[in-house]
Amino acid sequence: MKVLVFGLGALGTVFSCLLKKKGHQVVGLDREPVLTAIREHGVKVTGIWGEHTAQLDDLQTSVEKLHERDFDLVILSVKSFDTEAITRQLAYVLNPETYLLLAQNGYGNYEAAARSIPENRLILGRVIFGAETVNLGHSKVTVVADDVVIGSPGNLIPESILESFARTINEAGIPTRISNEVMKYLWGKIIYNSALNSLGAILEVNYGKLAENEHSRELMNRIIQEIFSLLQAMGQETLWPDAATYLQDFYAKLVPSTASHHASMLQDIQRGRRTEIEALNGAVVALGKKYKVHTPVNVVISTLVKTKERMVLQSPST
Amino acid sequence: MKVLVFGLGALGTVFSCLLKKKGHQVVGLDREPVLTAIREHGVKVTGIWGEHTAQLDDLQTSVEKLHERDFDLVILSVKSFDTEAITRQLAYVLNPETYLLLAQNGYGNYEAAARSIPENRLILGRVIFGAETVNLGHSKVTVVADDVVIGSPGNLIPESILESFARTINEAGIPTRISNEVMKYLWGKIIYNSALNSLGAILEVNYGKLAENEHSRELMNRIIQEIFSLLQAMGQETLWPDAATYLQDFYAKLVPSTASHHASMLQDIQRGRRTEIEALNGAVVALGKKYKVHTPVNVVISTLVKTKERMVLQSPST
Repeated sequence: MKVLVFGLGALGTVFSCLLKKKGHQVVGLDREPVLTAIREHGVKVTGIWGEHTAQLDDLQTSVEKLHERDFDLVILSVKSFDTEAITRQLAYVLNPETYLLLAQNGYGNYEAAARSIPENRLILGRVIFGAETVNLGHSKVTVVADDVVIGSPGNLIPESILESFARTINEAGIPTRISNEVMKYLWGKIIYNSALNSLGAILEVNYGKLAENEHSRELMNRIIQEIFSLLQAMGQETLWPDAATYLQDFYAKLVPSTASHHASMLQDIQRGRRTEIEALNGAVVALGKKYKVHTPVNVVISTLVKTKERMVLQSPST
Repeated sequence: MKVLVFGLGALGTVFSCLLKKKGHQVVGLDREPVLTAIREHGVKVTGIWGEHTAQLDDLQTSVEKLHERDFDLVILSVKSFDTEAITRQLAYVLNPETYLLLAQNGYGNYEAAARSIPENRLILGRVIFGAETVNLGHSKVTVVADDVVIGSPGNLIPESILESFARTINEAGIPTRISNEVMKYLWGKIIYNSALNSLGAILEVNYGKLAENEHSRELMNRIIQEIFSLLQAMGQETLWPDAATYLQDFYAKLVPSTASHHASMLQDIQRGRRTEIEALNGAVVALGKKYKVHTPVNVVISTLVKTKERMVLQSPST
């Protein structure tokens, strides 16, 4: 299989390294200084899935510079705020037979990509293993909550094709399955992140601390209840019938298995980088306006994350 | 004049030291280790009003141990969450001719004190100079925004008596005047603190940073608008006709003159102590319930401060 991995951050490094080690032809695309580091050391994966290193077949900084355009699969693993601009570029250079797999965070990536890429070439992924960047091009897999789930939200892609991609990724060592309800899975992750990732970024504590404190629990309960009200107005189902059932699962299973995890948005802020708040609580607020559902807690929480983000982005020391 | 200063924190140290230096008889009441430090070094004031040291006439840890009970004035300068219990004790031991001056922060002190002390003995103070504790019993006056304003909210105390107390405090070096609208002044300070003190505690930055960031400005605007809606429902006027006029004053004058100030509740949290959140945004939320006014931003903000407070109060390391 010929694969382009667009974005060699924590997730893209894992996909590119394990697919290359399995014998596929893998091209990587990212900015400097990431590429220089990878040219020197290769891509490297450590942690739960063992230690692996690989040299990718080509490394480029932009789609225009790609030597080949006949990829079977492009895996998009960039930050959600870059999806729209990047998929617009991709639409010009990709073979019309190429499938694009979105392996990203938050709400809105599929909707943004669908503005430039036909929906029958667009695969949505719910990626729920955790990987941290140890060094540029070196990812450590720290937690695997469930298989990667891939699918076409409108079920516009033959199951046999999805099965074939799932098998390929699976055989490379990343447990993956298909679903004709991938959007339900994705919302499960958005709800989880909207409660934990944003509060973890504001309060600078791990997920376990947020769940053991009665006051932050109250806030998370309200964030989650607002999202379930929104989903009802949108007619979007999840894997849970209602907020109460989700909350039971959340405190009994989801949080305990990631109690020591720190918010990715906290890491972004500490590194002076933009966060994905607009694809999490920010998306909830925007959808709330659209569907006329009040989301006051998500409004305040997203505004607080944006306050911290703006402070570090403006700070001359970062 | 015979004065009891109850609470020898940052404010109580200033009142007790300057009144004693002016020749009044001043007894101090606080807990250990505050009293041991004051027995050794006296009470000390530095900063804007110059350098002063004094030895108080007596120091006690509880009202029962006081040798005299015929005070002309008791100045209460304890945290707001202690007001109810302390005024209940005071009611049993004070001379019925004694006046009680509340020199505290936030909403609810007058209401709590009035449960035990007759309102015609109760003077409400709006104290708006800033003092920091350098060491136990040593306060540094860092900013003086306006005179101390004292008055009887129901105008139940003769003006001549209030004038006489104001003159005494004024002559001791603390600019003080009387007003028959003291509650309007107090709300001005509550609004200011509900916007800046709580956000400063959550985000751990000074007041200037909060006002220069568009996102925290948005939150402060909403906090303040919710309070003005509440005040309208309560029939409580302030010195500003509406939220818009307050906000102009807030960004043009109030914040710039205290831009480098850090939230007192942040200092409380950093020292592992309880905050006054229930007398600020927490009081707004409670009054909102009572008067059926929605205060969602104040709900989230006060819950976040309570989250941080609970984390440090529970932490074994503090």
